[in-house]
Amino acid sequence: MTRRLEEIVARFGGNLRGDGSLAINGLATLETATAGKLSFLANPKYRGQLATTRAAAVILSAEMAEHCPTAAIITPQPYLYFAYVSKFLAEGPLPPAGIHPSAVVESAIPASVSVGPQVWIGQDVCLGENTVIGAQCRISAGAWIGADCQLYPGVTVYAGSRIGCRAIIHSGAVIGADGFGFARAPDGAWVKIAQTGRVVIGDDVEIGANTTIDRGALEDTIIGDGVKLDNQIQVGHNVQIGAHTAMAGCVGIAGSAKIGAGCTVGGAAVILGHLTLADGVNVSSGTLVGKSISTPGSYTGTVPFMAHDDWLKNFSRLRHLDAMADKIRALEKRLAELEKI
Amino acid sequence: MTRRLEEIVARFGGNLRGDGSLAINGLATLETATAGKLSFLANPKYRGQLATTRAAAVILSAEMAEHCPTAAIITPQPYLYFAYVSKFLAEGPLPPAGIHPSAVVESAIPASVSVGPQVWIGQDVCLGENTVIGAQCRISAGAWIGADCQLYPGVTVYAGSRIGCRAIIHSGAVIGADGFGFARAPDGAWVKIAQTGRVVIGDDVEIGANTTIDRGALEDTIIGDGVKLDNQIQVGHNVQIGAHTAMAGCVGIAGSAKIGAGCTVGGAAVILGHLTLADGVNVSSGTLVGKSISTPGSYTGTVPFMAHDDWLKNFSRLRHLDAMADKIRALEKRLAELEKI
Amino acid sequence: MTRRLEEIVARFGGNLRGDGSLAINGLATLETATAGKLSFLANPKYRGQLATTRAAAVILSAEMAEHCPTAAIITPQPYLYFAYVSKFLAEGPLPPAGIHPSAVVESAIPASVSVGPQVWIGQDVCLGENTVIGAQCRISAGAWIGADCQLYPGVTVYAGSRIGCRAIIHSGAVIGADGFGFARAPDGAWVKIAQTGRVVIGDDVEIGANTTIDRGALEDTIIGDGVKLDNQIQVGHNVQIGAHTAMAGCVGIAGSAKIGAGCTVGGAAVILGHLTLADGVNVSSGTLVGKSISTPGSYTGTVPFMAHDDWLKNFSRLRHLDAMADKIRALEKRLAELEKI
Repeated sequence: MTRRLEEIVARFGGNLRGDGSLAINGLATLETATAGKLSFLANPKYRGQLATTRAAAVILSAEMAEHCPTAAIITPQPYLYFAYVSKFLAEGPLPPAGIHPSAVVESAIPASVSVGPQVWIGQDVCLGENTVIGAQCRISAGAWIGADCQLYPGVTVYAGSRIGCRAIIHSGAVIGADGFGFARAPDGAWVKIAQTGRVVIGDDVEIGANTTIDRGALEDTIIGDGVKLDNQIQVGHNVQIGAHTAMAGCVGIAGSAKIGAGCTVGGAAVILGHLTLADGVNVSSGTLVGKSISTPGSYTGTVPFMAHDDWLKNFSRLRHLDAMADKIRALEKRLAELEKI
Repeated sequence: MTRRLEEIVARFGGNLRGDGSLAINGLATLETATAGKLSFLANPKYRGQLATTRAAAVILSAEMAEHCPTAAIITPQPYLYFAYVSKFLAEGPLPPAGIHPSAVVESAIPASVSVGPQVWIGQDVCLGENTVIGAQCRISAGAWIGADCQLYPGVTVYAGSRIGCRAIIHSGAVIGADGFGFARAPDGAWVKIAQTGRVVIGDDVEIGANTTIDRGALEDTIIGDGVKLDNQIQVGHNVQIGAHTAMAGCVGIAGSAKIGAGCTVGGAAVILGHLTLADGVNVSSGTLVGKSISTPGSYTGTVPFMAHDDWLKNFSRLRHLDAMADKIRALEKRLAELEKI
Repeated sequence: MTRRLEEIVARFGGNLRGDGSLAINGLATLETATAGKLSFLANPKYRGQLATTRAAAVILSAEMAEHCPTAAIITPQPYLYFAYVSKFLAEGPLPPAGIHPSAVVESAIPASVSVGPQVWIGQDVCLGENTVIGAQCRISAGAWIGADCQLYPGVTVYAGSRIGCRAIIHSGAVIGADGFGFARAPDGAWVKIAQTGRVVIGDDVEIGANTTIDRGALEDTIIGDGVKLDNQIQVGHNVQIGAHTAMAGCVGIAGSAKIGAGCTVGGAAVILGHLTLADGVNVSSGTLVGKSISTPGSYTGTVPFMAHDDWLKNFSRLRHLDAMADKIRALEKRLAELEKI
């Protein structure tokens, strides 16, 4: 979709410098931009690319504007501005409202909803206006999905799950499968505990491809407003995630963990069960969080990698750390004895 | 479903204390129980919640019974009892037997089986009595699935896989995809090794959402009776998992690992290929098991997380552990020299 | 499928020793082979199994041939030979060409293509000759898939993705979902950045079950020729993976990482974003790669596991490593003082 620069500024604000009638046909990085592209400078380390960019215009801050040889949109938060524009330029037509003839729909749904090919919607499902259900989604009985949601093909929603408005859910995501709860019988067999809670998801949530969010055991699993979950994340039963918390791919959250609002969790981090993380906690990628965190801030627990032979040499010592500490203590004592003489 | 307290005791045993005609309409924790709920006390640390619970009755041990102000079911294993009751109270009607008209079924199946909307069942598939195949499952040619199984919507079963009776398989699980086996050609290209083994799964197995179990290369991948696998677990080709072993979410098991019976594997743990774990091994969450374990017990290998700056300070030392050990040894020698004087 | 030994040698070369008319009905390991099986000896540690194997014939190197009591195919690379033969013996009939009547196909496709039950193929999709689309795959508008590909049931391909020839894609894989890109607004909300790049996959790529490959943000995510990805791998937006790189299960690759050609990445390894890995880098299982690697070779960063009590004792010291290093330095100084006396 092509927009004139002045249309963009009229919509999102910022100070326009240069020819507002320039036609913008897409976004690009400074380095790869071609004619007609709008670019952005958010990270000062790319400032050097301004001089040679072929972009038609650049979104940047007032401090950077003097270095910019092209038309510019000047705004205090270029990256955020870029985000807004990206959606504006990418807007395409929504799939047509109505139910594809190959879908099996067992509930009454609003006329504005789009139900794709081979979708199954069970009984007593409630869908909000303008929601788009992609091909082959499976929406089980009693699920409730708000307005203006987009479910990509092949999403599964278990019975009774609740999803707020404006959700974006990617393919292969599974919402509301049973939590992992068993009691052990004397003979070692595991006896299943019926998982009767729900998944309750707020508004403006995005859920990545093949991410799984389990239903609660007795109470609900709760995902706050504005939470963003990347791909292949596992959220156990009874977990609570506060508003505007974002998690990168492959994160695992064990059952009954309570994660605050405005947190970030790096890729492949693991948060153990029954812990509480305060608001504003940032967990680094690959970190295993094994106890609660009550103070906002950044937390890390990963080991450096090295050439394999160096690793062998250094990391075998980990089995003897306690002994090393003892040796140091013993040395300190002996030395003190000598020093006394 | 509502049951009287005496019905529960008649079915599952235990000593009833109080009014057996009390109507129980569900389960709840001590803290959140409302009128009509049955609760339980399994962990002594919640004993203090007995005094104020609003539960109609509580499942607990004889030792705890004196502290309980409500009706009670007294049993030596309250949590196990709770598990049995949870299923009893959660029982709803099964989906109706028969084949949904939108399903494509290329095999003869028992009249008691329920085949949901848009299911595909290939040729020569064998399904046991009363098994429920949820919407959009794909059961490939020659698969064999026992009686009383429940496959949630969107499960994939590859050709020739065998699944025992009473399996519960959650959405997005993939049973029997090719193992990851290649030989490297001189030019660096990987030449695929045909994966001709099967997946063979015992009775009473539960498999979580988006979990994948690969078929064997030449022989079979074998999952024992009563094994419970949480979500997003990857089981490589030729793996063997002994009876009643349970694994939490995001675990990865590399090819040809042999895991004993009655083991537990914590979330996001990784077990490397061609290893053997004895019966009764407990692997902690996040632990990478890099060699075989022949003795039952608990094993761990994770690093503590800390505030990011503390981590930077401490963990950079890991690159110098070997040098630290050398320095300690050198100090010990020099000190011994001095002590001789 | 049964083949005579001489047919195999005629097709793949090697020196035949023994009766070429032997009928081979499958492959097996030395230990488990029964009559009619062809086995192989690639790893010298299994040489002892030659004496007692019941295999009809064995693929092995000239050095090992003297120890082999059966017919033999002598070749310098027995494992590679075995790989070629495995495919030859496993060849079965392809699914019939044509479109299953339950499929919804909105594009013109070649007559040689096989479209399985309940598949959805959107508009403007381009499929190459002889490609097989398994049951319930969802191929969105504008996708391009080459010739001779095999998509197992339940694969999702997002709009505009490009996949080369001879791809094998397993169930539950999701190609082209949105990358994880957001800008943070002043109120803490995350504003989505439209993901407008594509996924572009070369020829001869295999993609495992439930693996996800995200589309690029502005540019494309690029998977080179001959890349092999196991199950449950997450590939972030704008990642580039060089030709003939192989990755085991559960690997996570964060956005914009550039991984060279001919690399191997062990299971559950994590590669952080915006890093560059040279050609020929081998990352060990479970290793978190937190900075770029410019030299080929093997790299590792994992901790040893141990009995839980030993772990408690040793790993608690990690919080004090920096202090330990300081103590060693202090000891060295004090000792030097004493030595001066």
